[in-house]
Amino acid sequence: MTIDLEELYKDLHSNPELSFQEVRTAGIVAGHLENLGFTVHRNVGKTGVVGVLDNGPGPVVMLRADMDGLPVKEATGLDYASMAVGVDHEGKDVPVMHACGHDVHVSCLVGAVEALAGQKQDWQGTLIAVFQPAEEWGGGAQTMVADGLYGLVPKPDVVLGQHVAPFPAGWFGIRPGVTMASADSLNVTLHGRGGHGSRPETTIDPVLMAASATVRLQGIVSRELAASDSAVVTVGQIHSGSKNNIIPETATLGLSIRTFSDPIREKILGSIERIVRSESTASGSPKEPEFDYEERFPLTVNDESAAGRVTAAFRAKFGDAKIIDPGPVSGSEDVGELATAAGAPLVFWFLGGVDASYFKDWAETGRLPEDIPSNHSPYFAPIIQPTLTAGTEALVTAAREFLGSPK
Amino acid sequence: MTIDLEELYKDLHSNPELSFQEVRTAGIVAGHLENLGFTVHRNVGKTGVVGVLDNGPGPVVMLRADMDGLPVKEATGLDYASMAVGVDHEGKDVPVMHACGHDVHVSCLVGAVEALAGQKQDWQGTLIAVFQPAEEWGGGAQTMVADGLYGLVPKPDVVLGQHVAPFPAGWFGIRPGVTMASADSLNVTLHGRGGHGSRPETTIDPVLMAASATVRLQGIVSRELAASDSAVVTVGQIHSGSKNNIIPETATLGLSIRTFSDPIREKILGSIERIVRSESTASGSPKEPEFDYEERFPLTVNDESAAGRVTAAFRAKFGDAKIIDPGPVSGSEDVGELATAAGAPLVFWFLGGVDASYFKDWAETGRLPEDIPSNHSPYFAPIIQPTLTAGTEALVTAAREFLGSPK
Amino acid sequence: MTIDLEELYKDLHSNPELSFQEVRTAGIVAGHLENLGFTVHRNVGKTGVVGVLDNGPGPVVMLRADMDGLPVKEATGLDYASMAVGVDHEGKDVPVMHACGHDVHVSCLVGAVEALAGQKQDWQGTLIAVFQPAEEWGGGAQTMVADGLYGLVPKPDVVLGQHVAPFPAGWFGIRPGVTMASADSLNVTLHGRGGHGSRPETTIDPVLMAASATVRLQGIVSRELAASDSAVVTVGQIHSGSKNNIIPETATLGLSIRTFSDPIREKILGSIERIVRSESTASGSPKEPEFDYEERFPLTVNDESAAGRVTAAFRAKFGDAKIIDPGPVSGSEDVGELATAAGAPLVFWFLGGVDASYFKDWAETGRLPEDIPSNHSPYFAPIIQPTLTAGTEALVTAAREFLGSPK
Amino acid sequence: MTIDLEELYKDLHSNPELSFQEVRTAGIVAGHLENLGFTVHRNVGKTGVVGVLDNGPGPVVMLRADMDGLPVKEATGLDYASMAVGVDHEGKDVPVMHACGHDVHVSCLVGAVEALAGQKQDWQGTLIAVFQPAEEWGGGAQTMVADGLYGLVPKPDVVLGQHVAPFPAGWFGIRPGVTMASADSLNVTLHGRGGHGSRPETTIDPVLMAASATVRLQGIVSRELAASDSAVVTVGQIHSGSKNNIIPETATLGLSIRTFSDPIREKILGSIERIVRSESTASGSPKEPEFDYEERFPLTVNDESAAGRVTAAFRAKFGDAKIIDPGPVSGSEDVGELATAAGAPLVFWFLGGVDASYFKDWAETGRLPEDIPSNHSPYFAPIIQPTLTAGTEALVTAAREFLGSPK
Repeated sequence: MTIDLEELYKDLHSNPELSFQEVRTAGIVAGHLENLGFTVHRNVGKTGVVGVLDNGPGPVVMLRADMDGLPVKEATGLDYASMAVGVDHEGKDVPVMHACGHDVHVSCLVGAVEALAGQKQDWQGTLIAVFQPAEEWGGGAQTMVADGLYGLVPKPDVVLGQHVAPFPAGWFGIRPGVTMASADSLNVTLHGRGGHGSRPETTIDPVLMAASATVRLQGIVSRELAASDSAVVTVGQIHSGSKNNIIPETATLGLSIRTFSDPIREKILGSIERIVRSESTASGSPKEPEFDYEERFPLTVNDESAAGRVTAAFRAKFGDAKIIDPGPVSGSEDVGELATAAGAPLVFWFLGGVDASYFKDWAETGRLPEDIPSNHSPYFAPIIQPTLTAGTEALVTAAREFLGSPK
Repeated sequence: MTIDLEELYKDLHSNPELSFQEVRTAGIVAGHLENLGFTVHRNVGKTGVVGVLDNGPGPVVMLRADMDGLPVKEATGLDYASMAVGVDHEGKDVPVMHACGHDVHVSCLVGAVEALAGQKQDWQGTLIAVFQPAEEWGGGAQTMVADGLYGLVPKPDVVLGQHVAPFPAGWFGIRPGVTMASADSLNVTLHGRGGHGSRPETTIDPVLMAASATVRLQGIVSRELAASDSAVVTVGQIHSGSKNNIIPETATLGLSIRTFSDPIREKILGSIERIVRSESTASGSPKEPEFDYEERFPLTVNDESAAGRVTAAFRAKFGDAKIIDPGPVSGSEDVGELATAAGAPLVFWFLGGVDASYFKDWAETGRLPEDIPSNHSPYFAPIIQPTLTAGTEALVTAAREFLGSPK
Repeated sequence: MTIDLEELYKDLHSNPELSFQEVRTAGIVAGHLENLGFTVHRNVGKTGVVGVLDNGPGPVVMLRADMDGLPVKEATGLDYASMAVGVDHEGKDVPVMHACGHDVHVSCLVGAVEALAGQKQDWQGTLIAVFQPAEEWGGGAQTMVADGLYGLVPKPDVVLGQHVAPFPAGWFGIRPGVTMASADSLNVTLHGRGGHGSRPETTIDPVLMAASATVRLQGIVSRELAASDSAVVTVGQIHSGSKNNIIPETATLGLSIRTFSDPIREKILGSIERIVRSESTASGSPKEPEFDYEERFPLTVNDESAAGRVTAAFRAKFGDAKIIDPGPVSGSEDVGELATAAGAPLVFWFLGGVDASYFKDWAETGRLPEDIPSNHSPYFAPIIQPTLTAGTEALVTAAREFLGSPK
Repeated sequence: MTIDLEELYKDLHSNPELSFQEVRTAGIVAGHLENLGFTVHRNVGKTGVVGVLDNGPGPVVMLRADMDGLPVKEATGLDYASMAVGVDHEGKDVPVMHACGHDVHVSCLVGAVEALAGQKQDWQGTLIAVFQPAEEWGGGAQTMVADGLYGLVPKPDVVLGQHVAPFPAGWFGIRPGVTMASADSLNVTLHGRGGHGSRPETTIDPVLMAASATVRLQGIVSRELAASDSAVVTVGQIHSGSKNNIIPETATLGLSIRTFSDPIREKILGSIERIVRSESTASGSPKEPEFDYEERFPLTVNDESAAGRVTAAFRAKFGDAKIIDPGPVSGSEDVGELATAAGAPLVFWFLGGVDASYFKDWAETGRLPEDIPSNHSPYFAPIIQPTLTAGTEALVTAAREFLGSPK
């Protein structure tokens, strides 16, 4: 290969960009695609890039990577750590970090398209590489589709993608059916009555209201779901107040909700609203709380048959021992929107990114170690190799499973 | 008079400035002082202004007003409401409002110095007018003293000042001894472990930690103090998180604590630290919480004898019915720093600022109505008259009580 | 004297009886009264005893002591500690203790009537000694009145009484006007839906509901009252569940609320109901919570003039240094019912009961030590002397202040 | 059959007995066993009964039913509802109810042994019927073993049992491997400092401490476990206080914890202790909380092979449509102790007990209706038929699967 994937990875890692602001990243990948002979479409869904390599009649295979970073201040101490600052959607300066490994996904996909472009004699069909913006906001895939993706490129026969995960590097997690959770993002505004910090009796304290609601919301997962139900209710943001001696007017909560079925999702959303309204009433709020639902991630569901083919191909390529079924994962993805809009089957898998030495007790206990910095942590740091090589080979292997043989 | 105080007041109200940024306000008051023949010192304690009017041998009387506004978004709907935006100490744009009536204090002091300058034939001594910055941050008076105030002007024989309050306009609250509470401002940082919003098991959630601490802190006032103890523990700020699907690393609480005695103050501060540390431990925090105490407001204590003289003068001027003893007030002030540094007695009183019609049930119930927007509320809106006239006359009356008679 | 008050005290202390069950105590005091020449009425208000000593024309003075103990397991380790067991109003066996010093009150009143009976030549009028049942339940005084007390004995010209308190023994606390708080006792029943401990999703957990309500109620005193307001909201009982692996149907809370004014009382009761209803709604309760108000203690208000006379008499008898104004006390009493029903002035004072050595820092700090076991504590243990002598002398002194002089 | 199972069931239901007090029930079943020709051992493990029917050489099959009721006040309104009162282990009178269907288990086992005794010509081997006490306390099976069960009867080749569950009557839930959760029962004592309800400042309030701990414990399941982990932490009991105006010394919590793996169990128990200790510290408790672990239920694990045989036999007998895999169930059982002590395989299944009409949406939604009164609810009321007949036939079918054929 001529592209140095490790260099590319470190460069992307040092220069993360927020959702729909992936201009530099898009430029880099578009340049590589052009160099490799792809027809390139830029600015598909604001900052998305799509490349098409037509290699004769045959199946159309779409490979997808997401490009955006997160408003997290990197604390890994790596020599290629990010010191980037971005402007969030409220116009505020925030630190930015590739805390979810999208730099891994981009690097592996660049590596895979280079490899596939170099072995055109060995396959036939059409290869589509999608570098998607704004996966973290949940709107990137949908925005590409709405912006006319499938007018620019043919609808694929299969959509393939991967996500780095806290498994041993070199290992893969893949399963048929439900693979990742549905995710809802909900912003709540609670209304108090502001006033002087020394005169609470003239106010309705939104800080206590929001804190009480946050505490009370824990009861949904702990008391309202069966042990066998899987769901997560996270209050990822709580904000109220501008000065210690002022009791503020309002407080806001930002929630992320993960579910694996519609009845559980509806039950949880109903319970959240019930609890928040009740805590508002408990404080004697002058005004009903407001619930603002942001874009939703659907369930990520792998096609049974296509996932079976990829699994078999991975077993053959990497060995049975390195292929696991992680069960349904509580994270969420919007890659499914690309498949759904095309009416195509989806296969999405997890790519191990952690030094294997962490996992010595895994076989025995059956539990993943919990002290590995998770995705979105400021300490998130996948090991570069064998992660990049494995991820590149996985994309090539899966693509070749569906691409045709040359006549 | 030639200065239109109502115009001045509306202009100040429309143009509030944050602590230590009162440049425009300082320019206006310095201009008036110079026009009235005062010797003017600018930039005393960053943005403070002091004027001296030497009117022959005799007592030295200091009148003080504070100038700063607050980071509150005005919601009064007044036609002179503030739409100002300032930059807070973190460099963030914030709305600014005169939500604590310092514009009233400045206007009344300008009116009072004009009146006293116009009646120089009737009194003898030295009049000092202090327009102090940064009362809201608690450092303004101390900064003026540290910046050499008493090298520039003579030490006063008495320090006089006032604050607008939720009494009927035209009324005054004054008492000997403890008048306002001690105030501590405390910032707490709680440490969790960040990660993905869908994988709480890999994190230590600082949002729940901070919310639990906030809820638990209520027990200090409700359970650890006697019914007869007076104190306030306000969590005026709670902040954690940057995105709904990220569990953050840390959370911050901003507290304001009001007390009237040292043993109670120490007990409360000890309880806050104990509770916050325990809630941190309850979450399994990887790191002790941090406690950052900001500048403290001392108790505001009126000199018994001097307060008695002012009270008597007010009764004579305004009528007994309009002079009340409000008891110790839970608000705080740093005006006492000016008196303490001079070794002078302090007299500080409250100036009613609310339409008298709100108070029809007061006599009967003995309780102030609680739906008057309190100081620091976005709806705080003192009635212009008779507030300005009464406040001006009060300063003149009190000053004349201590200034000498012409020979 | 012939009655050994210390022996009497220890005997009463070792044999406490619950409210309206003071049969043994009543028998003892009735015997003493009869021996001293009083006309004795037994079973006035179930277990109450009243003695009348007619000593010619003149003022009628009523002295009152309360007799009942509490369902507390004594932990003082005293050699005369109670090991008594009683049957509570639900028919359950409970330990019983004189944890509120009613044994002191009874002993001192026995001592006082013996002293006054022995000095009949020195005074004139009618002496009434009331040994009241069931002060702790709040119904004792009212029950005696309803049972015809003032048909049996003349209406008094003044009602006098005392309560042992955490002051130095030999000292007295007395004040005109509001002396003790109003008390409300409120039982709350919260409704969940019971089920198996392993299947919370089929239930509505009343344990979490009750715990959340208890926590949330702290916000009333901490956030809804002014620093200058005095009130106490105690959840003295919380009960739910019969077996760890059963989620119960209901939970109960028992509250005691102390206030010093009607508006604050009404505000607090309203807030309690609002919060409890909201927490019930937050849990999705199938049924509104129930609020059962038990008998209420009124404010205890001393007559200004009569209290002034007693204060002066105490200063003359015990010395100025030992007479203090404790301010309004958050405890409550029903002695006022006896005065109100008679249209007579009330004077009620506090009798120090603690070793003076505890108080060495008092003068300096102005705060009572908080580690003295309070009334109702299992460690409550007034020092016997000089408490008993001082309490006896106080009753005699106050009574003589109002009784007439012999012609 | 000659025994009227419906009559027997109603009689048992009307006369429930608490754990280790099943004297009447034991007498009834022992009588039936004797009438049927079994050798009967009484008082095995206090109140347990074991019957042995030797029918020639061949496999030894143990059928087990549990006999005890619960301290729940029945609220079903059935005409055979229990009005029984028992004495709990603290000597307190409590209502008793068959709220967990052990009356169904006993009735079905009586029916099964009658049927098997009547068809002795059709099978060969030894049949053991165990009527076990005290399943609800977790000690019954262990007590029978410790009391010499396997000295009295031969060790079985298989142990079979069933539990009524919220499925349609006539259906069965059965699975290989982990079938029911491990259960721990934990009693926690929290120490405060008691005192007068009006003087919280002299106390450390254990009610608030216990309530805060209960609320905070919710965070274990909601924040410390992965979405894919299954566990339940129930606070089934909270008790503190004897009188509204007394702040008590202590509070107690009673927890039931359900887990499916040792690492999760240990993590949860550690988190409970950490949180409870922290909440004790937050209140400034004078003494560490105490943790008293009661007897533990092990995981209930079905033998893979034996469970496969029973499943196949049920499918043949009742039809495929009525046999489901309920997944691991969060309830717990001690039946496994009988198998473990014998070194025998266990097969334990669930017997539907609810009118099928409740389940019309089940197929569609995949979720069991949650408004069916769960086991341990005061409204728990299995439908009598076809429950009893199905349960009887299931025991017979499973027993015959393992018993030998006659030569």
